[in-house]
Amino acid sequence: MSVLYQRVAFIGLGLIASSMAHAIRRAGLAAHMTGTARSAQTREVAREIGLVDQVFDTAAEAVAGADLVVLCVPVGAMEAVAREIAPHLAPGVTVTDVGSVKQAVIDAVAPHLPADSHFIPGHPLAGTEHSGPRSGFAELFDNRWCILTPPEGCDSPALDRLSRFWRGMGANVDLMDAPHHDLVLAVTSHTPHLIAYTMVGVADDLRRVTDSEVIKYSAAGFRDFTRIAASDPVMWRDVFLTNKDATLEILGRFTEELFALQRAIRQGDGALLHEYFTRTRAIRRGIIDAGQDTDAPDFGRARKHGADV
Amino acid sequence: MSVLYQRVAFIGLGLIASSMAHAIRRAGLAAHMTGTARSAQTREVAREIGLVDQVFDTAAEAVAGADLVVLCVPVGAMEAVAREIAPHLAPGVTVTDVGSVKQAVIDAVAPHLPADSHFIPGHPLAGTEHSGPRSGFAELFDNRWCILTPPEGCDSPALDRLSRFWRGMGANVDLMDAPHHDLVLAVTSHTPHLIAYTMVGVADDLRRVTDSEVIKYSAAGFRDFTRIAASDPVMWRDVFLTNKDATLEILGRFTEELFALQRAIRQGDGALLHEYFTRTRAIRRGIIDAGQDTDAPDFGRARKHGADV
Repeated sequence: MSVLYQRVAFIGLGLIASSMAHAIRRAGLAAHMTGTARSAQTREVAREIGLVDQVFDTAAEAVAGADLVVLCVPVGAMEAVAREIAPHLAPGVTVTDVGSVKQAVIDAVAPHLPADSHFIPGHPLAGTEHSGPRSGFAELFDNRWCILTPPEGCDSPALDRLSRFWRGMGANVDLMDAPHHDLVLAVTSHTPHLIAYTMVGVADDLRRVTDSEVIKYSAAGFRDFTRIAASDPVMWRDVFLTNKDATLEILGRFTEELFALQRAIRQGDGALLHEYFTRTRAIRRGIIDAGQDTDAPDFGRARKHGADV
Repeated sequence: MSVLYQRVAFIGLGLIASSMAHAIRRAGLAAHMTGTARSAQTREVAREIGLVDQVFDTAAEAVAGADLVVLCVPVGAMEAVAREIAPHLAPGVTVTDVGSVKQAVIDAVAPHLPADSHFIPGHPLAGTEHSGPRSGFAELFDNRWCILTPPEGCDSPALDRLSRFWRGMGANVDLMDAPHHDLVLAVTSHTPHLIAYTMVGVADDLRRVTDSEVIKYSAAGFRDFTRIAASDPVMWRDVFLTNKDATLEILGRFTEELFALQRAIRQGDGALLHEYFTRTRAIRRGIIDAGQDTDAPDFGRARKHGADV
């Protein structure tokens, strides 16, 4: 794989940025990498583990001379970062991001960037429950999707280069317009996460079922909610605040369906429940066929952990 | 491991019964195993793969002379099975089951069993999304919990033997009263499953987001809902019909919490969301510390599948 950018600058050094740094090194996609983070401790760790070639105390220093700037901060912090780096961007620079919401990032960042820069928002659909500069690993993006939402009239050589860059990190690249991205993710990610957070919160509140029992018997299903409910709180707060409309729309449909099933349970309507549960099986098969999950019992968790009821 | 039962009879030959048969063989816990299933095709497959020593066409034949009878049918079928086998049970037989709900099984089965039999209801917290006699494997119960709900004045030698039997299959055994079991499972299993079924149903209904997109981008969180929403529809229909009160109570708490978060999103209350999402992280840590999940990114799914956002 050949060098695609001479100088890549990361603003924010969490799970995604640190995984990108490892994946870039693995494929030799950049000649030089710089980075910065708001927290002095994060910068210190990044220096300690040699995550990138140079760690700067300010975003202004980090972006100087970069031909690719990657914004890896929570969506709510994007505007402030854009204002801060704009005066220091090199001509012709490509600016991208890794935020889980796209229209809000475009609204926050685009107005502040110089005319001679190329802003191409992106969202790699990958992550773990872990955060911080030590949590990254080179394989995070392998065979996963990265969605780019280029604006109207986006510079096509810049878009092509950024696409090859993500493929070089192991990802598959898709193009989409920002509003559609935000709706798709509201269904496949944002609403499921909110529901998981809610269920975990309910279990946490419940007094008659002690924490120890909830944890001890978690493998019966609850466990799978706790992992996605352990993701970074600031990131998810910003996702829900900035993809409000799509999330609320999907949540509305969800509660509508949930009430229908709740009513069926109350009324003892077994036929409705059976029909509903039969229908949902097909989607699972599709996901396995699409190579987006493993068919192994319990996802191939260490077998000693058994599988889920 | 020594032989604990001379003749074990399985009524129903699905995932749990077939996994028990493999685990019993692995540890040499039974001298002889018989089984039956309502479906002729299931019986045929069981004979074909030699799942047990003898497959009978009727439950009456299967239980004759058995010192342990294991009811592995959906909760809704328990009463009919109990009526059918009662006249054919050997004196002093232990009858147990593997149903996900316990009080309803006690109400359905206990009244029909002879006075000289020992009825000790059980629930192994293990399973996969797969069903049928071919889906079983010996390791399913390793390091997983099996909850027994012995009635008042249960024969303690019989209880001790059944406990050793489950430990011999690799499980950890806990004793609990039936109503508490049903509440704990409503929190850790039944309500999470209903919520997962609902979310998958919503995605399935959504017209603007094509199935292909929902499936393609499922690894962003949705995927984890689809697996638990792919479990056996008949089993889950019966769970919700027979653990109605506890499930409805937990569902009520769930929707209450969900509406509070929905309101916070609508009002842009980031502080509330952040506090809530921070609190839920602790439970996750407890589950990993309790050895009920792996800390590997993406549960150690084949790394080429990457990890979840």
